[in-house]
Amino acid sequence: MTLPAPAQGGSPAAAAGDPRRPVQLLVAGGIVVTMDPERRVIAEGAVAIDAGRIVAVGPLAELEAAFVGLERLDAAGRAVIPGLINGHTHLPMTLFRGLADDEDLDDWLQHTIFPAEAMNVDGAFVRCGTRLALAELIRGGVSTVCDMYYYEQVVAEELAAAGLRGLLGEALIDLPSPDCPDHASAMACIERFVGAWQGHPLITPAIAPHAPYSVCDQHLQEARAFADRHGCPLVIHLAETRHELEQCRQRTGTTPVQHLAALGVLGERMVAAHAVWAEAADLDLLRDHGVGVVHNPQSNMKLASGVAPLPAMLARDLAVGLGTDGSASNNDLSLWEEIDTAAKLHKLIHADPKLISAQEAFEMATIRGARALHLDAQIGSLQVGKRADMAVIDMDAINQIPLRSIYSALVYATKASDVRSLVVEGRVLLRDRQLLSLDLAAIEAEALLYRRRILERLGLADS
Amino acid sequence: MTLPAPAQGGSPAAAAGDPRRPVQLLVAGGIVVTMDPERRVIAEGAVAIDAGRIVAVGPLAELEAAFVGLERLDAAGRAVIPGLINGHTHLPMTLFRGLADDEDLDDWLQHTIFPAEAMNVDGAFVRCGTRLALAELIRGGVSTVCDMYYYEQVVAEELAAAGLRGLLGEALIDLPSPDCPDHASAMACIERFVGAWQGHPLITPAIAPHAPYSVCDQHLQEARAFADRHGCPLVIHLAETRHELEQCRQRTGTTPVQHLAALGVLGERMVAAHAVWAEAADLDLLRDHGVGVVHNPQSNMKLASGVAPLPAMLARDLAVGLGTDGSASNNDLSLWEEIDTAAKLHKLIHADPKLISAQEAFEMATIRGARALHLDAQIGSLQVGKRADMAVIDMDAINQIPLRSIYSALVYATKASDVRSLVVEGRVLLRDRQLLSLDLAAIEAEALLYRRRILERLGLADS
Repeated sequence: MTLPAPAQGGSPAAAAGDPRRPVQLLVAGGIVVTMDPERRVIAEGAVAIDAGRIVAVGPLAELEAAFVGLERLDAAGRAVIPGLINGHTHLPMTLFRGLADDEDLDDWLQHTIFPAEAMNVDGAFVRCGTRLALAELIRGGVSTVCDMYYYEQVVAEELAAAGLRGLLGEALIDLPSPDCPDHASAMACIERFVGAWQGHPLITPAIAPHAPYSVCDQHLQEARAFADRHGCPLVIHLAETRHELEQCRQRTGTTPVQHLAALGVLGERMVAAHAVWAEAADLDLLRDHGVGVVHNPQSNMKLASGVAPLPAMLARDLAVGLGTDGSASNNDLSLWEEIDTAAKLHKLIHADPKLISAQEAFEMATIRGARALHLDAQIGSLQVGKRADMAVIDMDAINQIPLRSIYSALVYATKASDVRSLVVEGRVLLRDRQLLSLDLAAIEAEALLYRRRILERLGLADS
Repeated sequence: MTLPAPAQGGSPAAAAGDPRRPVQLLVAGGIVVTMDPERRVIAEGAVAIDAGRIVAVGPLAELEAAFVGLERLDAAGRAVIPGLINGHTHLPMTLFRGLADDEDLDDWLQHTIFPAEAMNVDGAFVRCGTRLALAELIRGGVSTVCDMYYYEQVVAEELAAAGLRGLLGEALIDLPSPDCPDHASAMACIERFVGAWQGHPLITPAIAPHAPYSVCDQHLQEARAFADRHGCPLVIHLAETRHELEQCRQRTGTTPVQHLAALGVLGERMVAAHAVWAEAADLDLLRDHGVGVVHNPQSNMKLASGVAPLPAMLARDLAVGLGTDGSASNNDLSLWEEIDTAAKLHKLIHADPKLISAQEAFEMATIRGARALHLDAQIGSLQVGKRADMAVIDMDAINQIPLRSIYSALVYATKASDVRSLVVEGRVLLRDRQLLSLDLAAIEAEALLYRRRILERLGLADS
């Protein structure tokens, strides 16, 4: 085994004759919330990491006796959790944050977002927006993100450089898109993208047909064939709005989910965002075809899309994750607020305060969210052999005191600002709230240049 | 006019011969969001403060020419907003944060909260819990809070010492309470409390009959007579749950609101929390009697109480504010999340993304919230003559960039952690996120002692 050179600065390197195994990183102390099959919570625990993977999880004293970390992350008095999984977003759209609010979804898309995209989106825009999003995600404890947009090649480059894990879908849509004028060039672009990134330790490339209403049946089937041929995921928006459901019923006589099933598009490695208007038969189909579903409660609220049938999904043990959706529709990338909202919203809708416990909500942001992305063999829990993705969370913020139950505190009282450190694939990306792989000042300065340009091009006053 | 001695450290004291008027404090620069009747937003503004009141609001250049602040708060690149108003909470219950979640409201009250209160609540508990809550409120930009609990005398002492503004109601309930064994002693306690605090610049004492289901009709009428005799507010929980509505219908044949109207209890200076199950006729009554209403969206979600008819309230121009409710039921005191949730929830429920604009939501946390507490002549907007209550908000947090519209950014993207400074009655309580009137370390240490004691007394494991 080749070990990296000892890190500089305060890390206890193994002394000569020390019988302990040297490992790359030791996350030491704190409440370790494993999310493993037994849902073990270790009161004073530690995680040993080597070559990007978890090599041990257990009580601090045991790990201290067995391992010496070349680098060390102090988690005493804090919580160590699996890195959060943001199952649905559009990272570059962070530059469109707050561009239009309080509008009909169709107006919003047709009159603001689509023109804004046509006038602004190019590779440099995608790079800047992705970096801005990455800074927010990393500071919010997110280690894996499922993205769908244009120029996904650029998104992948930025994630790989910043060290975040991504399931990234290059969009396919039956409209001229910012990076591809027509269907043939889009398919060629997706083929290049998937070919370039398959096998990368952080990036899982995917094909992302936008939605059943914006991609024709033949192209949807082509996307499924492509996914099967390449063994890559297929990411899609599905059954998001009532309008989509009604339109689909008129055209096909059935629901969007049943229509995709009839087309042969439902299947393995599929990630479907929203599923707000999924009926019982649809949920059975999603489960039977092994489709991962991503629930975006705050986006669905703000755009008045409706409430996904989450209790019915969980009753079927569907693989459901949580997502923020893009910052143009939410308007932030805090997965903590989605966890909190998911736990509260369904209690309200079903008039049952016992629905969606704090633990169930937290599962959706971690291990169940990993299942939704078909990545649960690699991530979503702190278990030996899995990729070393974890966050260290302050538990003594004024909004968290006093701590009663760890899941309650994480779900109902913890904020993105309580995230102290983040490790992905064994690399420390955030330490004591400092971004180690991104230049925050440069990102902010560049984002402000784009802000002015976007407003100018849309003819909007600077307000 | 007696002026305080010039503050140490960087404040430009008036030089001899300087024609400018010396004032206590100048909040200088930044986007000033006045919430005045014209809803003026001043791009590069300032607020001059003297003797605890606002003496000028306008462009920075004009105020710099006319005033010199003995103390100065830099708001350049930030936003200056009226201090937020948390219209309903139970501050000491912060010590019960996360004590029980995901339970029926009745179970929660009967099996956890009431026993926990009986075993724990005394003056020292109330003091510790209030201090803990105050630290969170001040760091979250809240300048005024409407509280209802026991030992409200202690709550008032702590608010006055910390410098926060409060409308504080000593609870009246037809059960032995932690501070009063019976009704007669409770009325005597309330009389002492109101007598002690009326006329205080920060504290508005009130009588707080708990709810129509927990206080008999005769005692409710007595409370109203007391409020009229003393000219003090009357704070109450009203129409919170379907169970309360059904129980009231069975007993009285009508709704809680109409029942209170028939009893003569509805009236001026009344603040009613929740009003979830208020019908159209109830809303008309609340408006006609000048009752302030406080909407607690996250508490209502978590306890599955229902959705208050907010659009119908606003259509009647009711005085509606926002509240967090207690930390035992929410589980935090961030008013920012309530603003965000209020804007999103009603869009969802009414399937209309245009409902409750960002500006309307922000109004409920400021000027409309001030109306709900009958304090709008004093607070809720940045206008000359009003009390100098304001918060300085960072607008360059990673979750806020880029800024498009100020109301959108404040409502959909700003978090409690973005609050930089807070001024109440002209006194700086938070500067650069440092609490100036509270000892945070001491508060946290004391809260941890209570945490252990509460768990021990309830026979709960430390988990």
